[in-house]
Parts: sequence; structure tokens; C-alpha cells
Amino acid sequence: VEVTTIYQGNMRFAFGEGVSRVVMDARPEAGGLGEALSPKQMVLQGLLGCTGLDVASMLTKKGVVFTEFTLEAKAEQTKLHPMVFKSIHIIYRMRAAEADRPTVLRAIEASKTQFCGVSAMLAKSAELTFELDLLPLG
Amino acid sequence: VEVTTIYQGNMRFAFGEGVSRVVMDARPEAGGLGEALSPKQMVLQGLLGCTGLDVASMLTKKGVVFTEFTLEAKAEQTKLHPMVFKSIHIIYRMRAAEADRPTVLRAIEASKTQFCGVSAMLAKSAELTFELDLLPLG
Repeated sequence: VEVTTIYQGNMRFAFGEGVSRVVMDARPEAGGLGEALSPKQMVLQGLLGCTGLDVASMLTKKGVVFTEFTLEAKAEQTKLHPMVFKSIHIIYRMRAAEADRPTVLRAIEASKTQFCGVSAMLAKSAELTFELDLLPLG
Repeated sequence: VEVTTIYQGNMRFAFGEGVSRVVMDARPEAGGLGEALSPKQMVLQGLLGCTGLDVASMLTKKGVVFTEFTLEAKAEQTKLHPMVFKSIHIIYRMRAAEADRPTVLRAIEASKTQFCGVSAMLAKSAELTFELDLLPLG
């Protein structure tokens, strides 16, 4: 796994074009513009992408119909430097049949415990919790 | 720290607009288009942004002149699931005066050991190493 990023000035880094473009900058209190995602938000995006792909892949393979699949993560950090995540809560939200709730929960649990490497790495610092917000199929 | 992402179909997630837009998808062998960054690449971007902002901030505060600052990360993963990073090597590349090499190295080391929370989290799984590729000022 490889990546590159280039300093743009103003406490901003960017790399790539089109759908592979990634921009990060510092909050205003740290001398940045605070317009792009912060590095810590980028890590949480990686966590959501990792577990989200696991779940989407498992549900697709099982023929579960799901729509409007959204993930949200909220993390609390330690007060002291280096500030690391001490807790991360993930909300998995989707429309699917109520009868599929156990299958969706098993997919989320399997991602957390068996498949998602980003979860496994962050779980060494933070307590990871989740909830499923299942909405009726439209 | 909070983030959200939305499933787009085709094993792709995306969120945000303009400089805060982030797109992730799976490799073709995992059913995705492989056009955007993978979740693991997103995590490495967060690592580079975190330590890159530390270093840029420290050098700026010390009045060190540096240009063309680029960071590259290469990570090796475990073979077994969940696949986590077992080693991450970061190359810090910039143009700066040779006389500033010790200051730059101290900033990199301080980021790794004291300031960068992403480094601290990933160091629980992976061995983190770095090198400084200092090029002459143009």
C-alpha cells in the first residue's frame, strides 16, 4: 500500500486528480484554512470505507436488498499529546427489510472482528462501538 | 472528530464537496472500480498529513526555508485477516539548506515520538521507519 502527498503551503497537503484527489489541512487554530478534512478525519474516513466495503460486499453476496447506506463515525481523543482516539462510535444507517436485521448485524460484527484491518489497528488505541439504524425500505 | 460517508454502489463510498471531498473504492479483485483511493490508502494519507503538518509547522516556526515538501509512505501488510500494516516507511523529501538537516531531523523525530497521534496509533501494529531526502535549495 503506497501513497504520496505534496505540501501546498498554508498547512495544506494534497495529491491526485479527480476521484483519487485527497486534500488535507490544519484547523485555523493550528495555522491552516480548515477547509479540507484534517488528517484525523482522513483516518476515520479510511475506517468507514474499510468496514463499509466489508458490509456492502457481504450483503451483496447474500442477496440482501439495501439502499441509502451511510456511515457516521464520532471519535473522542485523549487530552495529552500525542492525541489518539480513545473511543470511536460508528453508526451504520441503511434501508433494508426488518427481516434482514440479523444478517446485517452479523456482517457488521464480522467486519469488526475478522475482516477490517483498519478497525483492528484502531482498536489497539480506542474502544470501538457501533449501532445499526435500520430504516424501512422505501 | 466526526466524519460521514455514503455508499454510491459499485463498492464505492464518497462524501463532501470541493476540497473536502473524499472518494474511496475497492480494488477490481474485490468488486470495485479501483479508481479512487482504497480505505487503507486513506489511512496512510492521514498519517502523512498528520506528520507532514507537524513538520511544516515546526520548520515554519523555526524560520527554516523549505520548498517542494513531499511525503511518501509504503506499507507492508500481514497476510492473514484482518490485514493490518506490519511496517510503514515514510520518506520526507524537501529542498532546504544542508545546514538545516539536524533541525529537520529533530522535527521529524518529535512528530513521531511526541505529537502525531496517527503515528502513535499505527505504531501499535506496525514498525514505523523514516528517511529524509534533503535536496539542495533551487
